[in-house]
Amino acid sequence: MATKTSKDIRNESRFMVLRSVYAGGTVTRAQVAAETALSPATVATLVGELVEEGVLREAGRISSQGGRPTVTFQANPQRGRLLAIDVAETYVRLDVYDLALARVDREQVELDPGAQSIESIAAVIAGALRSLRGREALGGEPILHAGVSLPGQVDTVRGVDVFAPNWGWRDVPVADALTEAVDAPVRVDNPLMAMATGELWFGAGRRFRDFVAVNLGTGVGAGIILDGQLVRGRGNSAGEWGHTTLVWQGRGCRCGRRGCVEAYVGVEGMRTTLGEIAPDHPLVEVRHHRAFIEQLMRAEAAGDEAAREAVLRTGDHLAAGLGNLVNLLNPEHVSVLGWITRYAGTELRERVRERIQQECLPGPGAGVSMEFTDTAGESVSLGMAVLALEGFLEQVGLPSPSSLPAPPAPAARTPHPAAWAVPGTATRGSR
Amino acid sequence: MATKTSKDIRNESRFMVLRSVYAGGTVTRAQVAAETALSPATVATLVGELVEEGVLREAGRISSQGGRPTVTFQANPQRGRLLAIDVAETYVRLDVYDLALARVDREQVELDPGAQSIESIAAVIAGALRSLRGREALGGEPILHAGVSLPGQVDTVRGVDVFAPNWGWRDVPVADALTEAVDAPVRVDNPLMAMATGELWFGAGRRFRDFVAVNLGTGVGAGIILDGQLVRGRGNSAGEWGHTTLVWQGRGCRCGRRGCVEAYVGVEGMRTTLGEIAPDHPLVEVRHHRAFIEQLMRAEAAGDEAAREAVLRTGDHLAAGLGNLVNLLNPEHVSVLGWITRYAGTELRERVRERIQQECLPGPGAGVSMEFTDTAGESVSLGMAVLALEGFLEQVGLPSPSSLPAPPAPAARTPHPAAWAVPGTATRGSR
Ligand SMILES: [Zn+2]
Ligand SMILES: [Zn+2]
Repeated sequence: MATKTSKDIRNESRFMVLRSVYAGGTVTRAQVAAETALSPATVATLVGELVEEGVLREAGRISSQGGRPTVTFQANPQRGRLLAIDVAETYVRLDVYDLALARVDREQVELDPGAQSIESIAAVIAGALRSLRGREALGGEPILHAGVSLPGQVDTVRGVDVFAPNWGWRDVPVADALTEAVDAPVRVDNPLMAMATGELWFGAGRRFRDFVAVNLGTGVGAGIILDGQLVRGRGNSAGEWGHTTLVWQGRGCRCGRRGCVEAYVGVEGMRTTLGEIAPDHPLVEVRHHRAFIEQLMRAEAAGDEAAREAVLRTGDHLAAGLGNLVNLLNPEHVSVLGWITRYAGTELRERVRERIQQECLPGPGAGVSMEFTDTAGESVSLGMAVLALEGFLEQVGLPSPSSLPAPPAPAARTPHPAAWAVPGTATRGSR
Repeated sequence: MATKTSKDIRNESRFMVLRSVYAGGTVTRAQVAAETALSPATVATLVGELVEEGVLREAGRISSQGGRPTVTFQANPQRGRLLAIDVAETYVRLDVYDLALARVDREQVELDPGAQSIESIAAVIAGALRSLRGREALGGEPILHAGVSLPGQVDTVRGVDVFAPNWGWRDVPVADALTEAVDAPVRVDNPLMAMATGELWFGAGRRFRDFVAVNLGTGVGAGIILDGQLVRGRGNSAGEWGHTTLVWQGRGCRCGRRGCVEAYVGVEGMRTTLGEIAPDHPLVEVRHHRAFIEQLMRAEAAGDEAAREAVLRTGDHLAAGLGNLVNLLNPEHVSVLGWITRYAGTELRERVRERIQQECLPGPGAGVSMEFTDTAGESVSLGMAVLALEGFLEQVGLPSPSSLPAPPAPAARTPHPAAWAVPGTATRGSR
């Protein structure tokens, strides 16, 4: 039974100060104190430490009538660079950020379909980094920290990709190869945690302490934020809402289960739904995910009945899945993010808005707000940049974590005679 | 954005000290320090405060070779009484506890089926309390605090039963009538939060910081414990796992939705399943919930094929529902509690054990443990006694909460133009 120490509180306070500065742009100490409810003395100390490390810098002075001028602060864009690397199943993208979290350059490489090894991924990253080094924005600037988002279930602490079915990865150590490729400290995570971290720093996290950030894309998932911190779960796998059963004995899902939320609300799920409604519809053959969604929405807007029905059914499933989250977690707010929201137009959103009431119990349904946010696919990148910033700050002795701490290592626990462990999952992949 | 203060930490530490003393029975300061990882000085201060208030008392002295004797402490059973009142749909039960959380007396009154008002409930409680007052265990002892568990969705802060469909209650203020009936301060809550609190103090909470306590009974639900604290949600409604969709367009549920977990795994769900397998089975007519479960399990053990099939199908639904919790929350542990576990025998448990692997993703499934615990229906009572104890300690200025704090009041938040609130739910009951 561990408890929070005064050091933990200091780290939490530092997180709040940083988030306040980064969200505000240029701020005074008094503004930070007002927004965070921290004491002016605490804010002064924490800002002072961050200035000393070069993370923040003085931005200017506001002269006030008769009194001393007030100093303003901002994040320091000249302190070095952060890398946010998004390794997806079809591309690898490297985004270069300054320490103020402004993106200054970008390089994207398409990946061949089919299996990849961590070595092939690392080689792609190293090649893209060479291109970036040759341009002005990165040039010879130091890379302070890199955040790498990898598909599947990622163990951040051990630096291992636990399970990435599309590449056949299981317990693949990734940290060393990536560190070598970027020649800087690396933090690995999964895209869902990245997106939720971005939303916590720059989105709903500024207004709510208890909320869910739902990601709609090829895969779907949910970042759970409770008491102002991202819930990671025992093995950094919390939030696999996409792989909860919504349709008993329903469609097979790529995870091996049946009837998962993702199999209805993800892109492939929407394509399957269209095929059930109109097997000969030409869009059923559009395999490219973004093209499919874009054309489906365009067809729907143009009066295509089958497309319309597919969107409505997707909305029904989405509303039920969101209702499950509301009933289970009783949050203040739900943000629906992800690239699908960019294309989805108003029909999907309106259907969810119509249906959500009957999917929520009166208690949890009362007063919860929902919002569809067009993040234009940038949220994973921004979130990984934030996680790289968090990694850098930890490295220089100024930790400011936005996640609930991982529980203690399993070995420390006393086994209980009546309990059983879930049996090994080695045979799952073969189903 | 509020943060934890040193006062919050002190309260958390006090909770850990209390839980350690109550679980250990008779302990030394050094044992508490070792178990809680708090400093000996902190333990000495916190124990001292609790002794001064009469919550703990010196139990004895252990003489050590050549040194000063070591003082042992225990909860003080002579400090007064706590009342744990379980208001269910068919009975009201009053349990009298001493401050060491030993039950010293009990009175139970059956309720007429059909609607009840808070006034009729309060009258039943007052009558039962008169009987208890006439006996020795309570006698003229002071009642320090009462914890009252009410059906439905209960707003603990406002003292309101938000939604109890079986009695047609919606936003019924309950605190005043109950306080008058017991002539003592009252804390109201729902049975799920009570059960989870008991599990946090005396069950899996002693071994795990992140776990789910699932309740199987007439209703089903889940208490979510993260980072060592019970998650209550925005309006004390977190954990309505029983009302998450598992079977798309499935059976109607008493909440008004379709295909909820409860409609398959709760008692009525199991009866419906048996009726689907064998419409003429005599047990389909057994309306009393405990009698039905008891006879179903007896029939299954005696080789009744339909009973066996009903148990297996229930196990399949339960395993999928538990898998949903594991995938969404990635906990260390799942405890399955509630009176059904007492009767369920080994068949249901074995079926879940067989099936759970394929319902969990490899990441969250790895290393999570599960346990069926026979709490013999006492866990709501014990949990409400703990909540009464927490209420009393808060009242005397020694708060030691085991729940995550409620988020700030909605009025304090800035509305966002793109967000919408879930529409009013006034018409739901009529479906
Ligand atoms: Zn799945
Ligand atoms: Zn329901």
